[in-house]
Amino acid sequence: MAIGGRVSLVGAGPGDPGLLTRAAVARLRAADLVLYDALVDLRALKYARRAQKFFVGKRAKRHAMTQPAIHALMIRAARRGRHVVRLKGGDPFVFGRGGEEALALERAGVRYDVVPGITSAVAAPAAAGIPVTHRGVASAFLTVSGHDAASFDAVIAGVAPHGITLVILMGLGRAADIAAALIARGWRPSTPAAVIVGATTAGQQVWRGALADLASDGADANGAAAGTIVVGDVVALGLASASIEEEGNLHVGRG
Amino acid sequence: MAIGGRVSLVGAGPGDPGLLTRAAVARLRAADLVLYDALVDLRALKYARRAQKFFVGKRAKRHAMTQPAIHALMIRAARRGRHVVRLKGGDPFVFGRGGEEALALERAGVRYDVVPGITSAVAAPAAAGIPVTHRGVASAFLTVSGHDAASFDAVIAGVAPHGITLVILMGLGRAADIAAALIARGWRPSTPAAVIVGATTAGQQVWRGALADLASDGADANGAAAGTIVVGDVVALGLASASIEEEGNLHVGRG
Repeated sequence: MAIGGRVSLVGAGPGDPGLLTRAAVARLRAADLVLYDALVDLRALKYARRAQKFFVGKRAKRHAMTQPAIHALMIRAARRGRHVVRLKGGDPFVFGRGGEEALALERAGVRYDVVPGITSAVAAPAAAGIPVTHRGVASAFLTVSGHDAASFDAVIAGVAPHGITLVILMGLGRAADIAAALIARGWRPSTPAAVIVGATTAGQQVWRGALADLASDGADANGAAAGTIVVGDVVALGLASASIEEEGNLHVGRG
Repeated sequence: MAIGGRVSLVGAGPGDPGLLTRAAVARLRAADLVLYDALVDLRALKYARRAQKFFVGKRAKRHAMTQPAIHALMIRAARRGRHVVRLKGGDPFVFGRGGEEALALERAGVRYDVVPGITSAVAAPAAAGIPVTHRGVASAFLTVSGHDAASFDAVIAGVAPHGITLVILMGLGRAADIAAALIARGWRPSTPAAVIVGATTAGQQVWRGALADLASDGADANGAAAGTIVVGDVVALGLASASIEEEGNLHVGRG
């Protein structure tokens, strides 16, 4: 007997499979078809034993599949009774286009659910020993995409240059421009900054310095696929940087 | 043979035990002692079978234990060789005082690790069908504590009244003041707003309206222990509100 198909929009978290939620693992185990992005750590796919797995992300600036094609594929598969997992790095609703996919599924009348994931906006700084908020230092944090210059600059133009933590996702390729834009908007060149690449994985690398140095040093990270930039006084709190011990063991502090 | 004690600062996520990470469950299973806060869903404690469990949070405006007393208790227990889990609602580094606790542990030379959790800042809106970012609508979101008026007003004074999503945690008791402060700062009274209480639990309630109405209607939620306020055009995207089907099954959209 055929049961109805469905789509689960699932966040895979920042990388470490230990940071998958129980619900994400359950969806992967039940999946017939997994459509995954470039930012997904491939170790998450091992839970989807029964499923066909398709890469639909972007590599070397080329999309494997357009967004409308992804929508059409999900809808078609669900209508054929399949359980589709749309697996995204981090959280589906934090720059993951999860909202667009949810709207497309609603318009098509396809049953779906959303499983939030640990966003890199919080977990990547944490993996470098940086709390995005800290009493007396930052009582707010702004999460912004650094990918598009016009959009980034419009957001930054509306934010006073102090008192909050900036978390910039997808900005690694534009680190120098981002640093220059912030300094032009009044952020102190000496504001502590950090870049975290490969957060919560064995390949994690952390750069720390001043915002002014991000313009030059930060450019070294241009080749990296994904990274998180943090700007604000919380970077200088002095917590030890993370070292990864084992799966699920994001080890911060003295070992 | 005594092995060294340690402390794990663990995020319990927004409520639904299905949104615990695998690493959080592993830490709870290994724990000898769990110190948990008021915002922790008690279903998470079932994994800590071997552990003593102490409530150290705040109820009815009274702290069960002061912050320095919590630090002292963690340090003492770890030095006696125990594995302590400090369990916090959401994420330890998003208004969870995790940074302060990590610093105290470092200063004491106690081994510790940090396990990020799903923050309510993202998951509570998601549970109401609200993506905090959406292409063409919001390319950034600001997460801010609403608890302290002076601190909230200082943050808001530095943010232009458009273009980003505001996510206000711990602001439910001050909803009317928060709405008035935003409108005074130039936010349109018609800006879409939502309040989510008990996100991802069976008791979840969602209020939607205009920012201007939050001042009056929002006050109804004053009795609620915890809630998330969202302000911005993403609230009006028209995604279906969540309904909770089963543990770990945050069900958004048409059932």
